[in-house]
Amino acid sequence: MRATILYAPGHVRVESWADPSIERPTDAIVRVVAGCVCGSDLWPYRGANPVSEPRTIGHEAIGVVEAVGAEVERVRTGNFVVVPFNHCCGRCVHCLAGQTQGCVELAMTASGQAELTRVTNADATCFVLDAAPDPAQHAAVLALSDVLPTGYHAAVSAGVAPGSTAVVVGDGAVGLCGVLSARRLGAERIIALSRNPQRQRIATIFGATDLVPDRGDDAVEAVLELTDGVGADAVLECVGTGESMRTAFRVARPGATVGFVGVPHGTEIPWSTAFRNNIGLRGGMAPVVRYLPELAPAVLAGELDASAVFDLELPLEQAPQGYAAMDERRAVKVLLRP
Amino acid sequence: MRATILYAPGHVRVESWADPSIERPTDAIVRVVAGCVCGSDLWPYRGANPVSEPRTIGHEAIGVVEAVGAEVERVRTGNFVVVPFNHCCGRCVHCLAGQTQGCVELAMTASGQAELTRVTNADATCFVLDAAPDPAQHAAVLALSDVLPTGYHAAVSAGVAPGSTAVVVGDGAVGLCGVLSARRLGAERIIALSRNPQRQRIATIFGATDLVPDRGDDAVEAVLELTDGVGADAVLECVGTGESMRTAFRVARPGATVGFVGVPHGTEIPWSTAFRNNIGLRGGMAPVVRYLPELAPAVLAGELDASAVFDLELPLEQAPQGYAAMDERRAVKVLLRP
Repeated sequence: MRATILYAPGHVRVESWADPSIERPTDAIVRVVAGCVCGSDLWPYRGANPVSEPRTIGHEAIGVVEAVGAEVERVRTGNFVVVPFNHCCGRCVHCLAGQTQGCVELAMTASGQAELTRVTNADATCFVLDAAPDPAQHAAVLALSDVLPTGYHAAVSAGVAPGSTAVVVGDGAVGLCGVLSARRLGAERIIALSRNPQRQRIATIFGATDLVPDRGDDAVEAVLELTDGVGADAVLECVGTGESMRTAFRVARPGATVGFVGVPHGTEIPWSTAFRNNIGLRGGMAPVVRYLPELAPAVLAGELDASAVFDLELPLEQAPQGYAAMDERRAVKVLLRP
Repeated sequence: MRATILYAPGHVRVESWADPSIERPTDAIVRVVAGCVCGSDLWPYRGANPVSEPRTIGHEAIGVVEAVGAEVERVRTGNFVVVPFNHCCGRCVHCLAGQTQGCVELAMTASGQAELTRVTNADATCFVLDAAPDPAQHAAVLALSDVLPTGYHAAVSAGVAPGSTAVVVGDGAVGLCGVLSARRLGAERIIALSRNPQRQRIATIFGATDLVPDRGDDAVEAVLELTDGVGADAVLECVGTGESMRTAFRVARPGATVGFVGVPHGTEIPWSTAFRNNIGLRGGMAPVVRYLPELAPAVLAGELDASAVFDLELPLEQAPQGYAAMDERRAVKVLLRP
């Protein structure tokens, strides 16, 4: 197959690579119809995570089931599926409690930016669509594999409730999906922290009622001013740096929760704020499989559309240009078509 | 008045000091019937917090109202009151939301280990008892000023629910009150991490069903073994060090919450565990005023008794010996009688 291969920081190539195969009888192989580049793919690309040997990359994909293992019963060859980035067994105590990201057999999509990808525990993991969606819906459906449920997880974890005021820290694709999700959960006021005109535009389309271009102390002051000095009922932290985490805690009203969805890198909690104001922290890896039965029908019905985060679409062969565009913040999120 | 004065790390004296006075018309002055030493008093005593000048110390007290300001209406001279360590106005947006620890006029009891202490916003802050309690109940009632509602806050923040399994990290007075509170909230299994025989004994009296004397990796392994590899439904973190916080996150089952109630000092969250397992963090300073209407009647009825944490009672004049006993872990918590 043709696949995007990560060789070293700053160095991705599209080349021929061994096809994935059924390794366990519960596996499926999916022919990718659309994949994309995630903000977290930029970590190894930027050298934040080590790259020990060349490997396939990409964990978001939709496509058509090409083959299934002997024990796969529900998913059939020819099905059009959303492939959640995190695969789960559906049977362990954590899956049964809805904590699919804590599955004892947790595995990840490993070649979403390629022609084929392997899905473990396919019956529990794949979300099967009744029919192949119209190509015009591919971007919206692709968002279900990670970025939309991840933004939704930030909003759910933060406890966004009808009529509430939410602040979204971070204007990447996940943050923007956080805005969209906060609106879906009924937030009356959604304050998006963004200084980039294009991202501000998407945030507004997704439901942001206020835009704050400041950072650090100025951002905190601006949010407090917008909320009559009270702070936000819910805060979505979609960056993961020390500064963004501090900002998130400081704009939260006492008793509020910061919902976080990225792996913070060396980030400390601002303890004295957390302590006095009783600001909670909740989130982490999104339980995508848990959310899809709720989110997918809304997407397919056209009620929930995150496709605007894909502002650049390229053929798979041009994946390196896609990485460069995201790295240089020329694009929010790049969709790749094999 | 006679008062305990902190001069420098390791150096407290009981001596004559200026009486507190009504500074604002909403203040009250309480004649202390019983006060005590808190684990957090040991921070400046041990040099963890700077001591810039000699000052009174102690933030836990019960007593009789000696004087009230012109605007105090509900609290009357002669009332027997519990003095919550954190005072609040009862009118601001945060108080009205139950976040009394986030009050815009937040203040603390400043001379609980003395003959007299000042209470700000007395009407909202003081919990007035119908009658002076029997001296045999003083210790149980004194626990309402901080240690019991703080342990309760750890349990509430951790989301302890009927039938659940709770782990309590920390066998200080707060941790022990956490055990008692977890039982009150209906936990079926309460695993206390303690290696001290005397504290194990109190934990058992308070409702611990299992005792784990190990620390670090061994403690995590022991808890996972006790929970069939699943982890705890709720974790009470009552220490605040890096090791205790790591242990707390690692014994929590995916989706569980760590309830914390001390100000962590330089503590980092174990992010990768928090991320994958979606372990939440919630807590901080206890909203004592919010909890007292619920806890005080139970204490007065004898249904909730944390008095066993006071394992040493001394006259106020011997406060220095009380500090030494707690510093050397010869006593769990010292009650002082002026």
